Amino acid sequence: RGKLFLIAGPCVLEGESHARGLAEAVQKIAAEVGIPYCFKASYDKANRTSIKSFRGPGLVEGTRILRAIAKDTGLPVLTDVHTPEDCARLSDAVGDVELMMQIPAFLCRQTDLLIAAAETGRAINVKKGQFVAPGDMRHAVQKVRDSGNERVSLCERGASFGYNNLVVDMRALPIMREFAPVIFDGTHAVQTPSAGNGVSGGQPEFIPVLARAAVAAGVDGVFLEVHDNPAEAKSDGANALRLDRLKGVLEELVAVHEVVGRY
Amino acid sequence: RGKLFLIAGPCVLEGESHARGLAEAVQKIAAEVGIPYCFKASYDKANRTSIKSFRGPGLVEGTRILRAIAKDTGLPVLTDVHTPEDCARLSDAVGDVELMMQIPAFLCRQTDLLIAAAETGRAINVKKGQFVAPGDMRHAVQKVRDSGNERVSLCERGASFGYNNLVVDMRALPIMREFAPVIFDGTHAVQTPSAGNGVSGGQPEFIPVLARAAVAAGVDGVFLEVHDNPAEAKSDGANALRLDRLKGVLEELVAVHEVVGRY
Amino acid sequence: RGKLFLIAGPCVLEGESHARGLAEAVQKIAAEVGIPYCFKASYDKANRTSIKSFRGPGLVEGTRILRAIAKDTGLPVLTDVHTPEDCARLSDAVGDVELMMQIPAFLCRQTDLLIAAAETGRAINVKKGQFVAPGDMRHAVQKVRDSGNERVSLCERGASFGYNNLVVDMRALPIMREFAPVIFDGTHAVQTPSAGNGVSGGQPEFIPVLARAAVAAGVDGVFLEVHDNPAEAKSDGANALRLDRLKGVLEELVAVHEVVGRY
Amino acid sequence: RGKLFLIAGPCVLEGESHARGLAEAVQKIAAEVGIPYCFKASYDKANRTSIKSFRGPGLVEGTRILRAIAKDTGLPVLTDVHTPEDCARLSDAVGDVELMMQIPAFLCRQTDLLIAAAETGRAINVKKGQFVAPGDMRHAVQKVRDSGNERVSLCERGASFGYNNLVVDMRALPIMREFAPVIFDGTHAVQTPSAGNGVSGGQPEFIPVLARAAVAAGVDGVFLEVHDNPAEAKSDGANALRLDRLKGVLEELVAVHEVVGRY
Repeated sequence: RGKLFLIAGPCVLEGESHARGLAEAVQKIAAEVGIPYCFKASYDKANRTSIKSFRGPGLVEGTRILRAIAKDTGLPVLTDVHTPEDCARLSDAVGDVELMMQIPAFLCRQTDLLIAAAETGRAINVKKGQFVAPGDMRHAVQKVRDSGNERVSLCERGASFGYNNLVVDMRALPIMREFAPVIFDGTHAVQTPSAGNGVSGGQPEFIPVLARAAVAAGVDGVFLEVHDNPAEAKSDGANALRLDRLKGVLEELVAVHEVVGRY
Repeated sequence: RGKLFLIAGPCVLEGESHARGLAEAVQKIAAEVGIPYCFKASYDKANRTSIKSFRGPGLVEGTRILRAIAKDTGLPVLTDVHTPEDCARLSDAVGDVELMMQIPAFLCRQTDLLIAAAETGRAINVKKGQFVAPGDMRHAVQKVRDSGNERVSLCERGASFGYNNLVVDMRALPIMREFAPVIFDGTHAVQTPSAGNGVSGGQPEFIPVLARAAVAAGVDGVFLEVHDNPAEAKSDGANALRLDRLKGVLEELVAVHEVVGRY
Repeated sequence: RGKLFLIAGPCVLEGESHARGLAEAVQKIAAEVGIPYCFKASYDKANRTSIKSFRGPGLVEGTRILRAIAKDTGLPVLTDVHTPEDCARLSDAVGDVELMMQIPAFLCRQTDLLIAAAETGRAINVKKGQFVAPGDMRHAVQKVRDSGNERVSLCERGASFGYNNLVVDMRALPIMREFAPVIFDGTHAVQTPSAGNGVSGGQPEFIPVLARAAVAAGVDGVFLEVHDNPAEAKSDGANALRLDRLKGVLEELVAVHEVVGRY
Repeated sequence: RGKLFLIAGPCVLEGESHARGLAEAVQKIAAEVGIPYCFKASYDKANRTSIKSFRGPGLVEGTRILRAIAKDTGLPVLTDVHTPEDCARLSDAVGDVELMMQIPAFLCRQTDLLIAAAETGRAINVKKGQFVAPGDMRHAVQKVRDSGNERVSLCERGASFGYNNLVVDMRALPIMREFAPVIFDGTHAVQTPSAGNGVSGGQPEFIPVLARAAVAAGVDGVFLEVHDNPAEAKSDGANALRLDRLKGVLEELVAVHEVVGRY
């Protein structure tokens, strides 16, 4: 069991200076806590509940920002893709920056997307669909591996539990770790999908609880959307972790991870 | 409340003569039962559990077959799309044939796909995601309408109920009918997702029960995947309705629909 | 497939004259619609969410009222039991009145209660627990039969679906009918458990939809809690059917049942 | 946040010497690990799936054994009650032994049972029903408190998740801790209800994972059914923890609890 790593950043790129500020702030915290860090931000929110919601700067401008931040901070970056065509374009655009390509949960069974992402040779993080049993994620992993890419991880972000609610089944973590490294997404796991009027709600008060539980159950990394001002975030602010709470949460997670690693 | 209509055909195009045979057989049955009929078949199964599963003839060959069948039988056809790029290509390829474009359940929140489909001007059938509350489908409808297309229907095919199982919540039908006409998919509703070793299972014995219940609850149309030999079907055979059972099921559905319409 | 029968009445006995009034009103409607009718009322609501809620007149006074109504109207009556001790007491108290003894959903696995109820020789209606798979109700039936009582029916009233919500899985009806006659409880199925502040809410607008669907799927009887003034009902008013809507609903159910029986 | 405590023992009393052996073995382990321990065993399994399953020695013989073990070991004991009548009988029979009375999950809304248990003045542990939202357990706590008993705890043992499966929602733990101390039942949480032919199955391999997660999320105590030979256990062997694994699990839990308490 290696070191716990962190993937964190805003849900969507809200602008270069905002993203850069968050990346640097989280980088500093991660260094203080002593864990590897990958900056996360989406350039396009392709499945917003409402057609009127903010979607982001798009692939071209988005990858320019991601690349600039990665170059200046030395951080690897993660962003998600939505169509097979995006994959090579994104990979080419970020160039020599270390990029993790993420498959959104709703798209985790789209074979062409998985193959196109895999064929870029980038590390691939596949989010488990809210409608998928953990054991079935072996097939997503296999689609990536059969495309010649061994760098694949899986990400837990909750399962459908009735309407407009998700539940994290901690059994999913060891089940999926039999196939690939597992990352726990502590912020989407507390989403209450579409519970508002065309906007997903959230329960950020449960982020530390679920993240602690997941790390104790056993994961390789943690994914957290953070924002300096969730109330003003342009996407998913309802379930983001406040930046000023991040350090406390991480210290606790690292301590739990260390204890669990001992046994 | 108008006449109940039928959308039916094989899950995937297995070849022109097979598809044509099914289309003609169902057309005959629909005429005998007295209901409007739209032929259904997919040219690409883009989200099979396993990368090794049969996917179909692809867009080019698939649309050729669909167009040929539509031309010869005079039937409208339905098929599904998976990326925004597919939509115009598909619409152009089928030309003057009456086409209903279907948004798969997993993709029902992909804004670009909904818009691209809507912009073809074709009738759009959006399947409700297994992870979506019925009331939230208003947003999918709105995405189509905001793109200038009023011909949109919604399709119920079950909601996630624990792992590897779906449940049809009949309340979803009247809820969604407040937004758009509603079609009940009686064959995917009896799927047991990925319950096999990388292959979805099914409970076709419950198709008549669920379809009767849905028609009694109130729907505008029924969607049924039929196959002359489900055991040999190249996709989703486990939950297909046997062709030789179709007529009996439809007679019952028409009778129930008539009774319900009276009140 | 026989005639559809009706079990209906107030959730709880609110007083003799009120109960009698409802019994007579429903008896008249059932006669007009042409279906057998069994009066239903509880003498004790033993599992109210809150300790402060109204519970009913208790076994002694309750059975007095039930017996009086049964004697005067000639109707069979149904009421529920909560402890093994209640069963014989209840059976003795109602004497020569035709009584159906109901096992509440939460208690459907309490072996001693099932045995004690069975041993009275009365007809037993076992509600399926919200936490029980339909196929597992065979064991409840077996507990009654092994106690020497063949008069046992099962009742569907919804399954847990996330928190504070139930879903009716129509597959449950044919599954359970393999073991025993099946009754559909259209009013508890629309309950939203404890969704209020210590009080269960409800969606009575879905009673006709779900009842039609269930009858179309195939059931032997329908259970409906009715009230002349749901807003003032002392228990479960939130999901009761208004008395003045009963006739319309029943006419529709009878018509659907007739159609289904034909096939 | 105090010391983590342990409630453990066999599911059902299989005989005095077997129970005593387990109590002493667990007592030794708990002492080594340094945590308070309460012996647990049922005298009657009142809700077995099948009428043919072993139920235990009954209240009279069961309380004799529990009292003897408590007297000889000095341990407090926990056992469950099923009817209001049992409560005073049980309390009287064990006399001056420290007894925790447990309300089974299916019965957590039976008002009379909660009141009768509360009125004995004993500590009451209420298991959350598989069909109850965590926030609604405030009402169970209130029923005990309104009966003049402040010594009430709540116990998480999983929520219905589709059929024949449970899921532990870790959010439930902090939610319920707002009302009362919370105990995590790590063995019933891995039950697969009635998944066998009239016998519940289980996934004991997930006990350590879920227990670690729950302790990290934050609980006051842990409940574990242990058996020296689960394959031969007379009840719930399928989900029991092997006695020889207990010490390792507890050491890990204590370490996690300590770390969490620090923050």
